[in-house]
Amino acid sequence: MSGNMLGKRFMVLSFGESHGRCIGAVVDGCPAGLRLSEQDIQALLDLRRPGQSIVTTQRKEEDKVEILSGVFNGYTTGAPITMLIWNKDIISKDYERVLETPRPSHADYFARLKYGGFNDYRGGGRFSGRITAGYVMAGAIALKLLRETLKIEVLAYTKRIAGIEARPLPIETIREKRLANEVRCPDEEAAEDMKRAILEARSSGDSVGGIVECIALNVPPCLGEPVFDSLDSDLSKALFSIPAVKGVEFGAGFKAADMRGSEHNDPLGLVDGVVRPLTNNAGGIVGGLSTGREIVVRVAFKPAASISKPQQTINVKKRGVEEVVVTGRHDPCVIPRAVPIVESVVGIVLADHAIRAGLIPPVLKGEASS
Amino acid sequence: MSGNMLGKRFMVLSFGESHGRCIGAVVDGCPAGLRLSEQDIQALLDLRRPGQSIVTTQRKEEDKVEILSGVFNGYTTGAPITMLIWNKDIISKDYERVLETPRPSHADYFARLKYGGFNDYRGGGRFSGRITAGYVMAGAIALKLLRETLKIEVLAYTKRIAGIEARPLPIETIREKRLANEVRCPDEEAAEDMKRAILEARSSGDSVGGIVECIALNVPPCLGEPVFDSLDSDLSKALFSIPAVKGVEFGAGFKAADMRGSEHNDPLGLVDGVVRPLTNNAGGIVGGLSTGREIVVRVAFKPAASISKPQQTINVKKRGVEEVVVTGRHDPCVIPRAVPIVESVVGIVLADHAIRAGLIPPVLKGEASS
Amino acid sequence: MSGNMLGKRFMVLSFGESHGRCIGAVVDGCPAGLRLSEQDIQALLDLRRPGQSIVTTQRKEEDKVEILSGVFNGYTTGAPITMLIWNKDIISKDYERVLETPRPSHADYFARLKYGGFNDYRGGGRFSGRITAGYVMAGAIALKLLRETLKIEVLAYTKRIAGIEARPLPIETIREKRLANEVRCPDEEAAEDMKRAILEARSSGDSVGGIVECIALNVPPCLGEPVFDSLDSDLSKALFSIPAVKGVEFGAGFKAADMRGSEHNDPLGLVDGVVRPLTNNAGGIVGGLSTGREIVVRVAFKPAASISKPQQTINVKKRGVEEVVVTGRHDPCVIPRAVPIVESVVGIVLADHAIRAGLIPPVLKGEASS
Amino acid sequence: MSGNMLGKRFMVLSFGESHGRCIGAVVDGCPAGLRLSEQDIQALLDLRRPGQSIVTTQRKEEDKVEILSGVFNGYTTGAPITMLIWNKDIISKDYERVLETPRPSHADYFARLKYGGFNDYRGGGRFSGRITAGYVMAGAIALKLLRETLKIEVLAYTKRIAGIEARPLPIETIREKRLANEVRCPDEEAAEDMKRAILEARSSGDSVGGIVECIALNVPPCLGEPVFDSLDSDLSKALFSIPAVKGVEFGAGFKAADMRGSEHNDPLGLVDGVVRPLTNNAGGIVGGLSTGREIVVRVAFKPAASISKPQQTINVKKRGVEEVVVTGRHDPCVIPRAVPIVESVVGIVLADHAIRAGLIPPVLKGEASS
Repeated sequence: MSGNMLGKRFMVLSFGESHGRCIGAVVDGCPAGLRLSEQDIQALLDLRRPGQSIVTTQRKEEDKVEILSGVFNGYTTGAPITMLIWNKDIISKDYERVLETPRPSHADYFARLKYGGFNDYRGGGRFSGRITAGYVMAGAIALKLLRETLKIEVLAYTKRIAGIEARPLPIETIREKRLANEVRCPDEEAAEDMKRAILEARSSGDSVGGIVECIALNVPPCLGEPVFDSLDSDLSKALFSIPAVKGVEFGAGFKAADMRGSEHNDPLGLVDGVVRPLTNNAGGIVGGLSTGREIVVRVAFKPAASISKPQQTINVKKRGVEEVVVTGRHDPCVIPRAVPIVESVVGIVLADHAIRAGLIPPVLKGEASS
Repeated sequence: MSGNMLGKRFMVLSFGESHGRCIGAVVDGCPAGLRLSEQDIQALLDLRRPGQSIVTTQRKEEDKVEILSGVFNGYTTGAPITMLIWNKDIISKDYERVLETPRPSHADYFARLKYGGFNDYRGGGRFSGRITAGYVMAGAIALKLLRETLKIEVLAYTKRIAGIEARPLPIETIREKRLANEVRCPDEEAAEDMKRAILEARSSGDSVGGIVECIALNVPPCLGEPVFDSLDSDLSKALFSIPAVKGVEFGAGFKAADMRGSEHNDPLGLVDGVVRPLTNNAGGIVGGLSTGREIVVRVAFKPAASISKPQQTINVKKRGVEEVVVTGRHDPCVIPRAVPIVESVVGIVLADHAIRAGLIPPVLKGEASS
Repeated sequence: MSGNMLGKRFMVLSFGESHGRCIGAVVDGCPAGLRLSEQDIQALLDLRRPGQSIVTTQRKEEDKVEILSGVFNGYTTGAPITMLIWNKDIISKDYERVLETPRPSHADYFARLKYGGFNDYRGGGRFSGRITAGYVMAGAIALKLLRETLKIEVLAYTKRIAGIEARPLPIETIREKRLANEVRCPDEEAAEDMKRAILEARSSGDSVGGIVECIALNVPPCLGEPVFDSLDSDLSKALFSIPAVKGVEFGAGFKAADMRGSEHNDPLGLVDGVVRPLTNNAGGIVGGLSTGREIVVRVAFKPAASISKPQQTINVKKRGVEEVVVTGRHDPCVIPRAVPIVESVVGIVLADHAIRAGLIPPVLKGEASS
Repeated sequence: MSGNMLGKRFMVLSFGESHGRCIGAVVDGCPAGLRLSEQDIQALLDLRRPGQSIVTTQRKEEDKVEILSGVFNGYTTGAPITMLIWNKDIISKDYERVLETPRPSHADYFARLKYGGFNDYRGGGRFSGRITAGYVMAGAIALKLLRETLKIEVLAYTKRIAGIEARPLPIETIREKRLANEVRCPDEEAAEDMKRAILEARSSGDSVGGIVECIALNVPPCLGEPVFDSLDSDLSKALFSIPAVKGVEFGAGFKAADMRGSEHNDPLGLVDGVVRPLTNNAGGIVGGLSTGREIVVRVAFKPAASISKPQQTINVKKRGVEEVVVTGRHDPCVIPRAVPIVESVVGIVLADHAIRAGLIPPVLKGEASS
């Protein structure tokens, strides 16, 4: 039980259910003195809101965040920050059938088994992608904290959807274009193809998977607390907490397995008088520590499990095989909405480690401290 | 600081340095009543001992484990189990040069920066692969606990080295053949090619990477504590704590990103009267919970960073570019010795989660309890 | 930072500020399947509500609890349980002066210093006794869980106020009479004297302290996880988290220091066929483990710091000595309202340890599990 | 299970058994760059070594500490520091009888019940006072760290034994005289009486209890992380982890319960230009935060449970009442040896909180950092 907290210093507790009263998060450990308003959080939350475009679910939720504690006179106080959105557009009758015919590749059956049938199964309950709204609330704070104290910038974008891959692009293009289209891919040509593939999958009652790449810039060297709280360890843990993630790799990643040392090793050089790897096959992390190079991580998402094509499942009451057609309002492709979620969890982990490394103090310098 | 503990219930603390007095681990949270001797641990430790074969480092270490606490009359007592091996075959003079010319793609430079120059740099200190001997000590206990209480079996083996991949094989063949050759690959033909590739790399002063696959059998359903302590989250965190790991994927993994939902989803069926996914693209984990199917995880290792080919680095005293040739006794390929390490950390995480799920009690039934 | 969580398995996160939007708590780790409604929590919360009687503060708060997550169809689900009360009767103008003239023996000055002036100082913010409403919400769940699974009963009552001590009484009398008067003392005669002393102190603009005794019945033996998470260690930690507590003792407590071993030792006997200490100088805990006897703990509270008598403080702007008269609506004696708070934190710690000892499973047997 | 770790940043893991191979501790989280040798630890350890004087047990142990990891070139490295003493003068045959006739007011019976009979019962195993040698090892590091970084000084001494109380003395006298006699009481006259009382108790086969007072000087204001990790919460938790402790109070402590607010409140004044309480009824902690005044805590110890007078117990095999006479080599009064133990755990908690407050950085400035 009770695996709902992430982080050791910048700690996030996730609460709420897909069709319960609300979805939220508590952040404990955010330094005092960060200027923070609901608007700061809303901006990122809007990027993952459902019903935004034709490539996403049509569930209509305003998802307007409220801060219930931990902020006073426009600044964080050092106390726990409780945030939530109220659930409004709930259609729960769609979901009662999952009790009898659990959806394949969903947690329906196993959640019910684990919690003795007491879990809130409506809309997937705690296993819904909607839970990640809480990750984004916490992530928005973390990202603002990183930006304002260390100028760290975290940029995620769609790298691949349905086998269509974005070309490698300069970071400036990625920054500028990544949110310019519905699929959040900075390669506009690929984006068009991806969009077509998504719509085609939807129209055939199917779904497609993809890859989100996330690049963190200006990360100072030496974040990470080996041996077990290595930076890559904690990033991967957080990333696998996003529903539908099936793989995580840094830098050259799985390709590194086929390389030779002489090919993969990143020679050290002096960049602006500072020792840095000159190439970045490592993806910015060596020995569990950041190297001062950009962190590059890729996250593989399986295709959304909710499809309207008929699938085989078991009727758990009748104990027999049955066909199921998943109705409800679902994303044919989760990748575009996963982009702000990936940014958020990367932000949470980096904030946690920046605090652990002593790079962000318990109280930020600011007006109130007079 | 202080990221040296893994697990919430079956907790492992890692201590020791590559060229210090010893390498060890403390396990806190192992149930009382597990029959345990040093031989139980030694068997797995021998599989990762250096100097075993021509494809590994020639450092000669006996690596004989001693249990210092927590075991009484042949059984665990419920108290912390402290274990260590003494370091003996230490040649530290090889390493003093890393202070001046840190090795590319090693942690030398960043560790020194992080710890203000106070870190034990000899042999990589805490960043050495030798630290994983402690993982194996703890892992041996975890694996025995899983085997004896839940009949869980964890089988890792070499899936790929230097681009040569083992064919898919039945689990019986994997179990029987995986330790039958020096590269620990159950596909004997591929094993021969892998061995040749390793020796060829060594003779050219280079190294090669690869992939370890790990299969856990008989894992009961519902292990995992979402949302953040999902089973895949905790497995990936532990796996990325092994030096040189650059990617982790479950089931179809990165391939899932290119699949359609209708193709990837695992239909539910009845197997011996129990609801189970009939295919296993999920790799045994859905929604962060085990499904009762075998867990399948693949771990990508970069090629060993220690190569004798000349590489560019920075002389940190002279602040200038310099060529470095890494001497010392190193593995041209870490994959064969990584096999027991992967098994160990998977075992630790499964033991932790089996205890969390209430499947292993604080005291095992046994003779002493009369 | 971030010391707002209590417990390892039954975990409580406290949030909210005295004059912020709300006061609340999240419980993570409550087993699934506990029947729970807002009424269950409200009953205990009503016992600590302000404005109940003439011996307490006159702040009028309805303190009506809302459950925001973690309960479904009348049962806990195993997910985090978020609860809160909204703050309504806030008069914050009383408090702005604490910025300039911090109140003696309050945290005003030190909180401001610690959080760089960013803390919500209104009404004491996080340092207000009102924060303990969150302890009571969590405690109500813990106490219900203990009652329904293990028949544990936790009874706190006023032992002493203003030097007036209740006579030792049989447990039945304590149970029956402890809530029968405004001071929550089961010795009716002493209760009258206590009440008079409180009113006398109030009328002279002063306050009085006292002692709460808490008795936990039916606690099974062997709760506690020595060496550091001993049952007395964790109980005392939780009790000192209640504002104004200055001392904690178990059983004979400080008197034990003057006793001889032959006098203090509790001989072992057979009670209903079970080995038990025949006397209870130990207060139910030996070696950090519960003994099966009732747990007896006494908690000393200092007199409330808010008094209307003039006191010396420092004007932090003028850097000079100044006289301060604390206005606002305060308790002349916190003891009566502390009774449910002491019960609550004792309940939280016992629930945590009962779960740790494996005596309460992750899922309770119940109707839903069919 | 697994309550063997203390602290969140300066973390201590305790291991070992009274009659096992060794007793030890691992400190994880000590900053890098603290000059540290075995002699630093030995000095404090010698103060709690058995067999030192006629008022303590006659078990002869050299208790020579060895540092196994985490120190390199005379400085801490930031890695876990593993320390131990080997057990040598073991006479275990004395202890086998506790299986059949558990000693009253010892953990014998309950430990056996809790761990299903698998616990190492010899000499009390994990429940022996000897375990505190590990606390002292960790405490010695903490106290040195506090002294060298913040000039904090922690002085414990015997306040009371067998009802004989030391007079209040100036801090200089306490510092100078507290270790000058066998009972570690700075009031020489009282010390003589205490010694007599101890020897008298011993000669009559009995034991006596007492009180240790601990004063921590130069503690900066604002240590403590309310609401749950208040400084007093964490100090009391650690103190109750010392065997035989039955009460903990700060400042006026239990006396505060009988005081009025106007009497107990500590007025604020300016001391050397700094705002400080002018009196110290609070014992240096208000609202869970240190105030800058000396911390004053008193710890009540029950009389040692091991007495040679006949006592009633249960023969657990025969299920009948039996008389037991505890043999072995025991302390007739644990207070003198408890003095360094109290200092140690207070040091550990203060170090933990000083690090949490950001007052001690992850790396200390020092020679190696060039």
